[in-house]
Amino acid sequence: MYKKIIGVVVFCWMACLTVKAQTPKQEVDLMPLPANVQMAEGKFRLQTDFRLALHGTFDKRLFGASSRFLSRLRDKTGLFLPQDFVGLDDIGKETNLNIYVKREGKVVLGEDESYTLKVEKDGITIEAATDLGALRGLQTLIQLAEADSEGYYFPALTIKDKPRFPWRGIMIDGSRHFMPIEVIKRNLDGMAAVKMNVMHWHLTDDHGLRVESKVYPQIQERASDGMYYTQEQVKEIITYAAERGIRVVPEFDVPGHATAWCVAFPELASSPWQYMKDQEGGKSEKKLGESPLALGDAPRLPPMYKIERHAGIWDATLDPTNEKTYEVLGNFLKEMMTLFPDEYVHIGGDENEGKQWDANPKIQKFMKKHKLKDNHMLQNHFNERLLKVIQDGGKRMMGWDEILVEGLPKDAVIQSWRGHESLVSAAKDGYQVLLSNGYYIDLMHPAADYYLVDPVPAEVGLSEEEAKNVLGGEATMWSELVTPVTIDSRMWPRSAVIAERLWSPREVNDVDDMYRRLDIISLELERVGLTHLTYREKLMRNITGGRDIGPVEVLVNASVPFRFYNRNSQGMMYTTYGSPYTLLADLCGADAVDALHFNNLVDTYVATNDREVKKEMQDQLNVWIANDQKIKNLIKVSPILKDAEQASANLAKVSSITLEVLSMEGTPDHKWYESKLKELEAAHHDGPFTEKFSSPEDVETKVGSRTSLLAVEGMIKLLKYKADKIDG
Amino acid sequence: MYKKIIGVVVFCWMACLTVKAQTPKQEVDLMPLPANVQMAEGKFRLQTDFRLALHGTFDKRLFGASSRFLSRLRDKTGLFLPQDFVGLDDIGKETNLNIYVKREGKVVLGEDESYTLKVEKDGITIEAATDLGALRGLQTLIQLAEADSEGYYFPALTIKDKPRFPWRGIMIDGSRHFMPIEVIKRNLDGMAAVKMNVMHWHLTDDHGLRVESKVYPQIQERASDGMYYTQEQVKEIITYAAERGIRVVPEFDVPGHATAWCVAFPELASSPWQYMKDQEGGKSEKKLGESPLALGDAPRLPPMYKIERHAGIWDATLDPTNEKTYEVLGNFLKEMMTLFPDEYVHIGGDENEGKQWDANPKIQKFMKKHKLKDNHMLQNHFNERLLKVIQDGGKRMMGWDEILVEGLPKDAVIQSWRGHESLVSAAKDGYQVLLSNGYYIDLMHPAADYYLVDPVPAEVGLSEEEAKNVLGGEATMWSELVTPVTIDSRMWPRSAVIAERLWSPREVNDVDDMYRRLDIISLELERVGLTHLTYREKLMRNITGGRDIGPVEVLVNASVPFRFYNRNSQGMMYTTYGSPYTLLADLCGADAVDALHFNNLVDTYVATNDREVKKEMQDQLNVWIANDQKIKNLIKVSPILKDAEQASANLAKVSSITLEVLSMEGTPDHKWYESKLKELEAAHHDGPFTEKFSSPEDVETKVGSRTSLLAVEGMIKLLKYKADKIDG
Repeated sequence: MYKKIIGVVVFCWMACLTVKAQTPKQEVDLMPLPANVQMAEGKFRLQTDFRLALHGTFDKRLFGASSRFLSRLRDKTGLFLPQDFVGLDDIGKETNLNIYVKREGKVVLGEDESYTLKVEKDGITIEAATDLGALRGLQTLIQLAEADSEGYYFPALTIKDKPRFPWRGIMIDGSRHFMPIEVIKRNLDGMAAVKMNVMHWHLTDDHGLRVESKVYPQIQERASDGMYYTQEQVKEIITYAAERGIRVVPEFDVPGHATAWCVAFPELASSPWQYMKDQEGGKSEKKLGESPLALGDAPRLPPMYKIERHAGIWDATLDPTNEKTYEVLGNFLKEMMTLFPDEYVHIGGDENEGKQWDANPKIQKFMKKHKLKDNHMLQNHFNERLLKVIQDGGKRMMGWDEILVEGLPKDAVIQSWRGHESLVSAAKDGYQVLLSNGYYIDLMHPAADYYLVDPVPAEVGLSEEEAKNVLGGEATMWSELVTPVTIDSRMWPRSAVIAERLWSPREVNDVDDMYRRLDIISLELERVGLTHLTYREKLMRNITGGRDIGPVEVLVNASVPFRFYNRNSQGMMYTTYGSPYTLLADLCGADAVDALHFNNLVDTYVATNDREVKKEMQDQLNVWIANDQKIKNLIKVSPILKDAEQASANLAKVSSITLEVLSMEGTPDHKWYESKLKELEAAHHDGPFTEKFSSPEDVETKVGSRTSLLAVEGMIKLLKYKADKIDG
Repeated sequence: MYKKIIGVVVFCWMACLTVKAQTPKQEVDLMPLPANVQMAEGKFRLQTDFRLALHGTFDKRLFGASSRFLSRLRDKTGLFLPQDFVGLDDIGKETNLNIYVKREGKVVLGEDESYTLKVEKDGITIEAATDLGALRGLQTLIQLAEADSEGYYFPALTIKDKPRFPWRGIMIDGSRHFMPIEVIKRNLDGMAAVKMNVMHWHLTDDHGLRVESKVYPQIQERASDGMYYTQEQVKEIITYAAERGIRVVPEFDVPGHATAWCVAFPELASSPWQYMKDQEGGKSEKKLGESPLALGDAPRLPPMYKIERHAGIWDATLDPTNEKTYEVLGNFLKEMMTLFPDEYVHIGGDENEGKQWDANPKIQKFMKKHKLKDNHMLQNHFNERLLKVIQDGGKRMMGWDEILVEGLPKDAVIQSWRGHESLVSAAKDGYQVLLSNGYYIDLMHPAADYYLVDPVPAEVGLSEEEAKNVLGGEATMWSELVTPVTIDSRMWPRSAVIAERLWSPREVNDVDDMYRRLDIISLELERVGLTHLTYREKLMRNITGGRDIGPVEVLVNASVPFRFYNRNSQGMMYTTYGSPYTLLADLCGADAVDALHFNNLVDTYVATNDREVKKEMQDQLNVWIANDQKIKNLIKVSPILKDAEQASANLAKVSSITLEVLSMEGTPDHKWYESKLKELEAAHHDGPFTEKFSSPEDVETKVGSRTSLLAVEGMIKLLKYKADKIDG
């Protein structure tokens, strides 16, 4: 999921940015926006006599969800709402908030999640076909709580709501950096808050196999560094998710991304190999399977598999010509299909470059014999074997783009990460598909970029039937560069805009209104337990050693981390557990507030030449200029901040240039213009890096802070405007 | 542990505050301070070539502890230290940091935790008898990391260190408010950071039985609201603690504090009872055990046991005359003694007022028959039965003060919560004792109060042999008024000063230096994962709805929550799960920084009449006065803050009075003095409340914000000084 993404992702974004329809501003501060809202007159006043009652038939998850709703309402309003645990006693008696449910919901793809919410002056009603719909309605209701000088209230309205797509997910990579279950839990709460319904759990990769197997204990014993989910914990997570109406789809990535698989099962690797040392402590050199000598090569040191510590695409690949591979994966998948109740099982299948296959004469011989013309067909052969295991288990197989080759049964589901093209053609061919291209939240693009990616843009021309094959989408959170401390901040609040894209009607796409509502949902997400806001204060205190965090905050609010995977150029600067994740780039979010605001000011100024706007820009620029000395002073006592020295100096420099541009009468001299433009562009520091680095120190020297100055976009625009290069 | 504590705790603190010895200021910013520090010349510079190596014989916990040490060092310094997981490859090769250990440590009472740490210009050495000593040494070393303009370094020095007491604990109440295991884990990390070595886990109380029993599943099924620790989780916590050199001592509180026991086992209650309804859903009225009619009373509605939702001391008590009680507790304790490996088992035994015993003719008859003169002797009879079970399990029984009555075997350990008197006399009688009186961190006293409580003050006159009976002490965190979000802030950083009291020599007791170092360790505690700092930003954002938190912060930094249990007067205002814990009182810490600073300014001013100090006080008072309007404005849009309206108005009012006092020439008129003194005292709002409340709203009206203005202490002093009531 690493190297090759850049080109295609950009392609897709460019295509989608042309969607520029504007919908009228909504009257409610909800995210995702409902399918239909009718405002009414009046308010339901929230008092300490507030109670809720349940009616009809529903799963007991509604007890818990109702109790959590009350708890959040108490925390948000400070009101003593004495009804604590909603239970059997709360069924059937009419009160302030009545929830009517027709039947028990099932946490499966396509379950009815619709609901109607009606707030009137003297009562609130939620009606839903299933308890899952009621859960979604309660999430809407809590977001509706507003305040005026008299206290808290819900505005009178009627909402009729249902999701646009049935699959609205986030993939969390628990392999590259292990994420303990409390991280998973709080993210499930975040997902529930924005009505997402699938957690795709990436459980194996080069960096570790993270799920306990009782059939093959070497999985966790050899290939997890001791960091794995026990089966008890997996069950706990599945229950926790189901209580929130969220499915858990496990992914076991094969045959590539398999370094850790080869650590656990070296005998299944596609490359000649040999045990150097029995990992369980024995001293003898064992030789299992074929010896490298049997290949007729001169004797050489065989590769030894070690859990991977760097990002990138690695060679280790399972051997699809070895029957033992199918025996092990078959038994393992059977065990996992019992553990995970969901109908879907994800087998990964991405980014297998087949280098080990090309180099292995035995594999080449097999391909010839079976008339498999290339590695794609060999991988398809492998997939078909797994498909049978999965079908025998009564489940459906899914995988990334690459599994789709000629002859793949229509039963398989394709998750598209490479682009719309593959998604569209698969949907036309009758495969069920999911979009992830454009939803790579780990790439640290601003929220707007993700927001405007539509799984079924009008212009792709799918028929209604074909469009139904597009199940929805998934944000993907690959964890090369995140820890349990920082991961929330890379996922939230931006995932909320993907949630809206997948829930709300296609026509909901006003970017300004999205950003406005995003600030509100961000607080709501903090309330449910996410740490995307607090972690920043924590890391800033760490950096300043308890001193004033102000100057760091100024810098952070003007900067964004390098996008794509450029922060970790070549994948070699950072290692999983040998690098610090407490630097400026970890602190910066994808939407640097002050920079975004400055860029907006530039737009306004270019359009209006307003003096007030000019004054505000000047004030901001002066703050940025003055901040550099403060950062320099801090670095003397907090050397960890040295990492940000260049970024701070650049910010001061481009701010000075821009001040000069602003105060200029007339257009600048052409030579001056060219040189300043160059300086601005140089300070931007975004885009791919192509240098080769010899060591981490070398990278540090060359790359500096691994952050970009987002406001340079506005600054360049302003310079061009002054130089008459663009129209006002 | 509730009502009666106030008197005795005050007594003890008063006694201890007389200890006022001053030790010379230390040159290292450590907490706890080591037994012996010798500073040397030079610095060990931290570079990316930094590695550690292990030598000798040790438990594998040292691998994990060393890896965590490196990880914290990376996070703190931002350095890429590539040695990630310390393991077998890191044994025996000399490098920058060498750790020499003689033997495997055991996580048992009295294990050797001593270590010697030597930092020289070109290398660091830790020597310890056991790996536990090495763990303590690594915690010291990470705290020693300092910075100058050249980078990070450790100062050259030699530390020879060992603990004063072998039992340095914190009791965490997981019953009143359930604390999920991630809360327990991060608190274990906090404990390890300050070298504490016992987590006393209060697992049962009126509010819930929180541990899974496989022998009696009704324990978790009926009496936990679904919130309990599974046996897997208990094992996980015990392992997690042992990896940090921390013992886990479980407490099962009997025969009082037993409401939840009576929910799970109504047939064991001391009061006539009857099932109103089978908790598992049956409709029939079952009668188990003796019918109330058998007592000869007229028919009446029997009490039904429900899990308690309020704080307080409740009547439900197990029946010590019922053989079934011993059968159930015996089997349960046997199960738990297998689950918990520690030698000590805590049976609680506190605050049994015996009301149900007095009222039960069958129990009265039993007492007469067995010549048990009072309820104490009846409880002793009960304890002796449990003691036998515990001894048969090869373990030692411990309990709160109340278990100590004539005839208690010397084998039992007494935990003293009622005062030094009981501790001293028990130690003299040859019992092993632990001090908790004076360490009730939930009472929200300032750090200094706890710091000066010595388990063996010089003046109590214990012989050296008797003093050895004092094993140490435990901070106690009762959880009536805390949630998983707020609990860290009620425990930390203050518990660090108790850790120092129990680790460092008696002579270490300079309060000013303690407060200085407390600010430093507080950041270190945040680094290990505690949330005592970030939770505040989170709750302030919740209160302001994302608006500027400044005005709330001003108020918070001037206020402290009501001490003792006065915030929750009568124990009736708050319920466990029906009340908000997001109010001003939840935000305020025990040591309000601005108020403490103001009070210090008053002291300086009274001593020096310094004009600069006067100016600084005036500035602060003006900030407090101006803040009230900002709070008033915020309340209009954030009604949750209405709770703080009175506190804010009081702060402005007393600040105005104090400004007037400050600007006064000469002494005030006596009548004016008296009236202002009254106003100041009235605004203080601390101390016990004795009013009766009819409802939560009534409490709110009467109590206001449930916070006190700590600076009023200084303000009153200033007024008295101006009025010539105290000497300068």
